Amino acid sequence: MATNRSPEIRKDAVHNRWVIFSPARARRPSDFKSKTDASSSANTHTECPFCAGHEHECAPEIFRFPPESSLDWKVRVIQNLYPALSRDLEPLNAERGGGGQVTLRGSGFHDVVIESPAHPVHLADLSPAQIADVLLAYKKRIDQLRSFDSIKYVQVFKNHGATAGASMSHSHSQILALPVIPPTASARIQSMKEHFEQTGECAICQVKQEDLSIHESNHFRSIVPFAATFPFEIWIIPHHHSSHFHDIDPDMASDLGGMLKLMLGKMSLQLKNPPYNMVIHSAPLRAESTELAFSHWFTQIVPQLTVVGGFELGNGCYINPVLPEDAAKVLREVSVQD
Amino acid sequence: MATNRSPEIRKDAVHNRWVIFSPARARRPSDFKSKTDASSSANTHTECPFCAGHEHECAPEIFRFPPESSLDWKVRVIQNLYPALSRDLEPLNAERGGGGQVTLRGSGFHDVVIESPAHPVHLADLSPAQIADVLLAYKKRIDQLRSFDSIKYVQVFKNHGATAGASMSHSHSQILALPVIPPTASARIQSMKEHFEQTGECAICQVKQEDLSIHESNHFRSIVPFAATFPFEIWIIPHHHSSHFHDIDPDMASDLGGMLKLMLGKMSLQLKNPPYNMVIHSAPLRAESTELAFSHWFTQIVPQLTVVGGFELGNGCYINPVLPEDAAKVLREVSVQD
Repeated sequence: MATNRSPEIRKDAVHNRWVIFSPARARRPSDFKSKTDASSSANTHTECPFCAGHEHECAPEIFRFPPESSLDWKVRVIQNLYPALSRDLEPLNAERGGGGQVTLRGSGFHDVVIESPAHPVHLADLSPAQIADVLLAYKKRIDQLRSFDSIKYVQVFKNHGATAGASMSHSHSQILALPVIPPTASARIQSMKEHFEQTGECAICQVKQEDLSIHESNHFRSIVPFAATFPFEIWIIPHHHSSHFHDIDPDMASDLGGMLKLMLGKMSLQLKNPPYNMVIHSAPLRAESTELAFSHWFTQIVPQLTVVGGFELGNGCYINPVLPEDAAKVLREVSVQD
Repeated sequence: MATNRSPEIRKDAVHNRWVIFSPARARRPSDFKSKTDASSSANTHTECPFCAGHEHECAPEIFRFPPESSLDWKVRVIQNLYPALSRDLEPLNAERGGGGQVTLRGSGFHDVVIESPAHPVHLADLSPAQIADVLLAYKKRIDQLRSFDSIKYVQVFKNHGATAGASMSHSHSQILALPVIPPTASARIQSMKEHFEQTGECAICQVKQEDLSIHESNHFRSIVPFAATFPFEIWIIPHHHSSHFHDIDPDMASDLGGMLKLMLGKMSLQLKNPPYNMVIHSAPLRAESTELAFSHWFTQIVPQLTVVGGFELGNGCYINPVLPEDAAKVLREVSVQD
């Protein structure tokens, strides 16, 4: 544990936003456990449309792995039955009201990736090769979506556990293809651009501190970020500078599968199977070549351990009770049995 | 109800960030109810240090209303027993690491405002004059805090209900005095500045749509904002352009007390006593005179009706299932018995 227990306020060049670290408010980092069990489910096995044999109860399928499989499919990508955006892609005419108000039609795609045919199997239970299949399904779907001119950004994310936003307990992730670049992505790109202009370096390539490191694999390293917004937040970063997740190849996908399995395993063991969110942060689809120099994709995993209250909501300044180097040490040292 | 049920993507000039409206995913706006009861408490009456007679169990008092009162106090402002920031105000030396990493000492103030001496009395139960006392306690404390050169921003907020972040069930709010300007405040000021430079107008003064309006009083109007981040989010805006909450006078405080009581009453009745967050958005303490022209303080109330998942977390783009004009109509029409 770090010996300095005074509060600190930090920011990094990736997000350029202040985070307050208040270790004195916390229990010891190693005592953090989830209060809610992520395995509590919103739907039960017998009524689950995501299970093998219930494919007809789902919205239309987009593709499956392997393509010719029947009930023995491994991964299915389907439409979301309750999409946040309409698939009706019309030209995007911005309607401008008084006072700077802008309205766009909510056109885009909202898909679901079913990660396993079996109900009780979660992402962390899959083998690295099986997780690689899920990652390659993301890649294939993004490759399809980026052919649409109106799609500016594709967001891949996963909510695990009802309190993390998952309405279905069968393991799945979501892909949202948006006609706008979402706010945090715009802000991140702007922040990394400013850093690049000042230093000539990619802010993520520069993250090298050993005390923030959890694990290294052939192609990736996992860290707790210097200005982590949430306790035990994890980033998985490719070693080599790369702007788009969809440029991943099968070898990298398999390596990332192993890294994800290890991180989810450590998190589950240490923090008692917490609900979590996983988000892949990639560059905008049509990023210009100048932007590629400072855009570096990464995967963020956030266990749900704290309640977001009025302070965070109001001003976007998060209070994190665990210093990143303490969280990294705990996660580095917890050993997952294979 | 609006007849157009297609998704929309909106932004306004206050926050300049995209919000997705997906009314087709929602139940009818009038069917929205809270799933958690805000009256479920983290501590019980008998063990509550915020109750009259237990003052010695609290961290030190800063002041009380009325000043000379004993057990008959109305409002107490005390130190937070578990402050997020250290009161040890030393010169703020930013420590810069590699890769654009910045660390500041976490110096500042974190205070608690106990809104009533009686445990079961919530803010909405107080009379407008009693709520005015709470607001004037905020003002008095901000006036004290802004005498410190190192304090750049004061954030007043309230978490009501355990799932909204309240660790004590006795009605209270919090005041955080920060040595930095928090991210959302910086972004809001930048966005309103750009709008002012383009139009010569304050973006909040320009918000006038009748279909977004809930209620008007002598000094304030309440609305659902055009690009509301959350379903049934409410803003209370002073009619006359004013940058700082702490410039409020007793007449305005009393009027705002009535407006807050009405909004909390409507929200509780319509949405079934939801947990909520209340945040006062004011200008930075040392805003320059040029900034005052486009900074307009307001109070935001957010009932907790939805779970924030990976999508919102990942990219700051919120999916709101209720169109603001639908929420405003429902709140406008629900009648609170006095």
